[in-house]
Amino acid sequence: MIDKRLKQDMDFITELDKMKSVIRATNLIGKDEREDDAQHSWHISVMAMILSEYADEDIDNYKVIKMLLIHDLVELFAGDTFCYDAEANKDKLEREIAAAEKLYGMIDEEKGQELRALWDEFEEMETPEALFATAMDRLQPILNNYYNNGGTWKRFEVPKSKIYERVAPIRKSSEKLWRFAEYMIEDAYDKGKIVAE
Amino acid sequence: MIDKRLKQDMDFITELDKMKSVIRATNLIGKDEREDDAQHSWHISVMAMILSEYADEDIDNYKVIKMLLIHDLVELFAGDTFCYDAEANKDKLEREIAAAEKLYGMIDEEKGQELRALWDEFEEMETPEALFATAMDRLQPILNNYYNNGGTWKRFEVPKSKIYERVAPIRKSSEKLWRFAEYMIEDAYDKGKIVAE
Repeated sequence: MIDKRLKQDMDFITELDKMKSVIRATNLIGKDEREDDAQHSWHISVMAMILSEYADEDIDNYKVIKMLLIHDLVELFAGDTFCYDAEANKDKLEREIAAAEKLYGMIDEEKGQELRALWDEFEEMETPEALFATAMDRLQPILNNYYNNGGTWKRFEVPKSKIYERVAPIRKSSEKLWRFAEYMIEDAYDKGKIVAE
Repeated sequence: MIDKRLKQDMDFITELDKMKSVIRATNLIGKDEREDDAQHSWHISVMAMILSEYADEDIDNYKVIKMLLIHDLVELFAGDTFCYDAEANKDKLEREIAAAEKLYGMIDEEKGQELRALWDEFEEMETPEALFATAMDRLQPILNNYYNNGGTWKRFEVPKSKIYERVAPIRKSSEKLWRFAEYMIEDAYDKGKIVAE
């Protein structure tokens, strides 16, 4: 028969299927559909494969990718919180910590602790790996919004200053990626894809 | 200004957004919606994080995850081919090789070659990493079909013998995961989720 540990792992993996239905604010490029957490996590993980050469510091890219694959798992229980929704962000961390405790309690203790440690490191945004992972997470919506004629920037009339605040961590990880982000935001503003200062 | 190499990488990354609209035959668990390539690739990459301990041979799990993240990229141009569609599978490899040449020609040569080499290794199913990656790719639809009252197995009346043929590579990588797959298939058959021998 199937041993208990493996059954627990498989139940956890089955639960993860729900990530495909946690909907984000961002649209797919050129589509009416909105992106989900599984799609987003996949996209930024591949981005880390393609863009690791631009990190200013040496990074363990395997760790970066593991962080990115699991960084949004807490949203299974806490839901997606739109980054420009000030009200919903007030208790975001609290909700996500409660979700992490529930989620990582579902599997073997050691495994749960490993995943939780990756998520904690990501959230703290201090190590070179966490900063590069954050850069991927902030860069991708820039691309999607840029190629969707402003996307959520325009839909929610997000001011340029707020966008810069949101993407500022990119600069801590990569000067080259930062310059790219800046170029995209300024060009979007010039073209009316960002509607307020 | 943005250098050419980085611009090319970003154009490639933008193109990848379309993976979120390449639809597979498998349904999400408990949903009418079908899964897309981005969701599937994410799910099996996290599975590799959780299940690597069950591989019978030593594996480089970073390589496994990189393979899984990109294993379906050729479907951007070749589309998804349902594994039990004998007719469509006749020219699958040919279509996918043409797609790989187009796709990996879109970025820097060295980077393109690296990604192509990962895909080739995956397709050849010989190294321990390629076999473990294949095991993840074959295991996930078992879970989704099992928890969808038979899913594509039932919808297309796939005989149990064909299912065993499809999932056989799991045994080459992990005895424990193989026993799990076998348990799920037999249980599905007993419960009428698989409708033919």
